[in-house]
Amino acid sequence: MFVLMFYDVGEKRVAKVLKTARRYLTWIQNSVLEGELSPAQFESLKVDVKKILKDDYDSVLLYAWRTERYMTKDIIGVERGTVDFMI
Amino acid sequence: MFVLMFYDVGEKRVAKVLKTARRYLTWIQNSVLEGELSPAQFESLKVDVKKILKDDYDSVLLYAWRTERYMTKDIIGVERGTVDFMI
Repeated sequence: MFVLMFYDVGEKRVAKVLKTARRYLTWIQNSVLEGELSPAQFESLKVDVKKILKDDYDSVLLYAWRTERYMTKDIIGVERGTVDFMI
Repeated sequence: MFVLMFYDVGEKRVAKVLKTARRYLTWIQNSVLEGELSPAQFESLKVDVKKILKDDYDSVLLYAWRTERYMTKDIIGVERGTVDFMI
């Protein structure tokens, strides 16, 4: 399945969330990652991320699609994901 | 079509990009908006956003799907989009 993840978390937890998410997905822009996961990997990602978050403060969104076949992706401006400058 | 938009732009242009994007989409989290658009609205959104951006610095990603029928959405932590506290 194709997964998009966005996180908006407290400063203290940013590096940890990003590090965990990158074990599963590819970083593409500030707070956004994407990738192709198996359903089992997807569940595992959610469990791992949930462990880090402060539930009443942080927010993580996960969109998943069975296929990326019907998807288009437009980039206006710079394609950040090509330069791997974070962590 | 179902559209997801993420922006990562210079501080000076954040408010303007957000204001423009909100004419078309719903803000759901820090730098993320989503919504259902016609193909014509989608093209118009891209044109409007492009006018604001500094092409060699800013980055805007637009994902589009013909339908949101095969999509799942998980929220871990807080659902920010329900509280409309930005601009």
